[in-house]
Amino acid sequence: MALTPARTPPGVLELLPFDQIAFQGMLDTIRANFERYGFLPIETPVMEYADVLLTKSGGETERQVYFVQSTGALEQGEKPDLALRFDLTVPLARYVAEHEHDLAFPFRRYQIQRVYRGERAQRGRFREFYQCDIDVIGKDALSVRYDAEMPAAIHAVFRDLAIGPFTIQLNNRRLMRGWFEGLGIADGERQMAVLREVDKLDKRGADAVRQTLEGEFGLAAGTVAKILAFVQVRSTSLADAHAQLDALGSGSDTFEQGRAELREVLDLVKAFGVPEAHFALNLSIARGLDYYTGTVYETTLDEHPQIGSICSGGRYENLAGNYTKSSLPGVGISIGATRLYWQLREAKLIGTATSTVQALVTQMDEAQLPAYLALASELRAAGINTEVVMEPSKLGKQFKYADRAGIRFVLVLGENELANGTVTVKDLRREDQSEVPRSELVKTLRVELEQAAAMRGRA
Amino acid sequence: MALTPARTPPGVLELLPFDQIAFQGMLDTIRANFERYGFLPIETPVMEYADVLLTKSGGETERQVYFVQSTGALEQGEKPDLALRFDLTVPLARYVAEHEHDLAFPFRRYQIQRVYRGERAQRGRFREFYQCDIDVIGKDALSVRYDAEMPAAIHAVFRDLAIGPFTIQLNNRRLMRGWFEGLGIADGERQMAVLREVDKLDKRGADAVRQTLEGEFGLAAGTVAKILAFVQVRSTSLADAHAQLDALGSGSDTFEQGRAELREVLDLVKAFGVPEAHFALNLSIARGLDYYTGTVYETTLDEHPQIGSICSGGRYENLAGNYTKSSLPGVGISIGATRLYWQLREAKLIGTATSTVQALVTQMDEAQLPAYLALASELRAAGINTEVVMEPSKLGKQFKYADRAGIRFVLVLGENELANGTVTVKDLRREDQSEVPRSELVKTLRVELEQAAAMRGRA
Repeated sequence: MALTPARTPPGVLELLPFDQIAFQGMLDTIRANFERYGFLPIETPVMEYADVLLTKSGGETERQVYFVQSTGALEQGEKPDLALRFDLTVPLARYVAEHEHDLAFPFRRYQIQRVYRGERAQRGRFREFYQCDIDVIGKDALSVRYDAEMPAAIHAVFRDLAIGPFTIQLNNRRLMRGWFEGLGIADGERQMAVLREVDKLDKRGADAVRQTLEGEFGLAAGTVAKILAFVQVRSTSLADAHAQLDALGSGSDTFEQGRAELREVLDLVKAFGVPEAHFALNLSIARGLDYYTGTVYETTLDEHPQIGSICSGGRYENLAGNYTKSSLPGVGISIGATRLYWQLREAKLIGTATSTVQALVTQMDEAQLPAYLALASELRAAGINTEVVMEPSKLGKQFKYADRAGIRFVLVLGENELANGTVTVKDLRREDQSEVPRSELVKTLRVELEQAAAMRGRA
Repeated sequence: MALTPARTPPGVLELLPFDQIAFQGMLDTIRANFERYGFLPIETPVMEYADVLLTKSGGETERQVYFVQSTGALEQGEKPDLALRFDLTVPLARYVAEHEHDLAFPFRRYQIQRVYRGERAQRGRFREFYQCDIDVIGKDALSVRYDAEMPAAIHAVFRDLAIGPFTIQLNNRRLMRGWFEGLGIADGERQMAVLREVDKLDKRGADAVRQTLEGEFGLAAGTVAKILAFVQVRSTSLADAHAQLDALGSGSDTFEQGRAELREVLDLVKAFGVPEAHFALNLSIARGLDYYTGTVYETTLDEHPQIGSICSGGRYENLAGNYTKSSLPGVGISIGATRLYWQLREAKLIGTATSTVQALVTQMDEAQLPAYLALASELRAAGINTEVVMEPSKLGKQFKYADRAGIRFVLVLGENELANGTVTVKDLRREDQSEVPRSELVKTLRVELEQAAAMRGRA
């Protein structure tokens, strides 16, 4: 029979076990911190009705959707009525609208699942990738205070991921809109167009953006200068952020409302315990989507600006207007974990994890297999992840296997050890070896493993 | 604008947050035990090339496949070249063949992901569901000893899930085939047909099966009687299992090989520490698939036989013959977690979990919000999942919220407490209240939460 070449479609990130362990560790850290901040888990199906998914979007997103069809429907030439979700926000909107009467508001949810986009295939672009989202959804109203909770939870995540210095950058759409109104750009559509242009500042540079704004948009040079000065505002501390907001002078109601929100959020981010080095004002942030109405966030790695934003989001007016008449304002933020992991690995900021397997029970004498299995049972009962060598082989080969497999402790239970009630423990990390009384083995390994875990936590 | 009805496609199990917490707890327990037994994680993409997924199957499976197509391909009228995986075994085969040279053998992997099948829509049938699989894959050969590891890991899972008494039932395909050969049914195809008929014993009853075997299959009444006696063999202990295997008398080489394997596996399952009450011989088990060649497993809840097998698998000759010339024998077992959860919930064997949120910091005085946030930071830093009431409301309402939300500890930081350096802790579970010095708060809550976790572990 001819062989079928074993291969995956382009745009997916399939990992070898050690990389998978590192990636899974990242997701675990994200989840633990989302739970620490009081968010509740939900999961939604990968496939949704196409009409539910595509109510709002049109444009770029819709062109990237994957449609799904069962064999039967395909044979009958039907149009597909199912599609794969392209983000977690539309499914959240559908979920909240569908289960509105069973949920307590403000509804605080986290969701860590894969999404699908028919992106053009290219290095670092994924067609299947994890999103890790938190959102708080209010019924009719939601205090701006919740906008400070997003950076707090995200700070905890990136602190624990230990990927180097990072800054969560904040802006406010109202402040921006108000500023534009003050410059005589009052029309909403036009503001959005200018904002989209300004959003390209990092990519195109100030000169190109200035040219477009003066030429295509017909703005006076003075106005463009003011816009560009505005979007270049960055703060270096909380006090500096307030000073910079002061320095903008007074403005329209919208402007003042945005500024007041931004001040409150910044103060609360600090009250949440986020160190000032980890958050800042950045008045250039507009976010691509037309969706956000107040606070907006981006997060960058200080030493790797080329990576761009690793976590973004903001405040929106009404989550589920396509599905329900209820008014559901909310605020949310999202980590694109697959792309983040890939970038960190490319930048050598994340290594290969040690194995989830912590101990290997070697095999000296086939006849003693029950003794090896009993030892493994003891370790497993104590919460130590243990593998047993099931087939006879040379001891040297077994050590080599443990080393390659990233297993830290190799345990030998030979004739002497069995007679003495001991186990020989070889620690491949410390590169030392000792004979430990059987009754103290669990305690000894646990102490070492907990120390190592604490070290990782501190890293 | 007309509203789109918010709804999910049939055949998906979407859970409210509390049920999601219970389900997630189940997946966590499964994963922890898979890791404890030394299995390594992998994840594969939800979509695979259709030609890769559908090399082998044909028949029932293929008719249930979901095909995937991007918008662009759909518009151009192309046939879909992608499909959603319908199990985790075919992707495992593809993975091992694709990454063969980067893997260490025996390759021990676990995988917990969703799969997709276009099942007829009916209660308790799912089109999207989780499978939780472990497999050990050998290169060229794999000792039968590994067949004992599957029940060991699965026993640990169901013990920790605390869903009542269960039995992992074992049989061996070689033993069965040898038995049939001894009865003059030597043709492989015919054996399979008889096995499939015998597999219906529970559904159709002995009489119906006897009629079919005598009529349709033309077997002598004495032969049919022997077959039915054989498949009714069950053991009550390890010694009884050996005695029952003895009582079968001698047979063909295939039969003897199967019996020897079964004996070795049963002995090792005990050596792995599985109590004898939790595993047994069951010579009726054939498994629907033509795929298995040696050991086969099914698992049933002793008090809920109507649920059927909650965990099944077996030994196969060659995992990836469609993709590689390498010979890759293996053994594996799978828990269908979505269906299991649904059935346990229907049978009232699984309740709604307590919230992942462990403490709620109430709001007495809006001006003290920074103090509340500081308290929450302290708790979070100590690993306690904490929510803060961000908007002012009556204290009674805040308590009611915590109660409905399943949050155990409600913390009050009023004027007195702030002056005294204390926190009032209301334990909604114990229904008591006490004023705790701030410096002892973390320790107090931790002790209670660890006790509760230990209780759950023991349940």
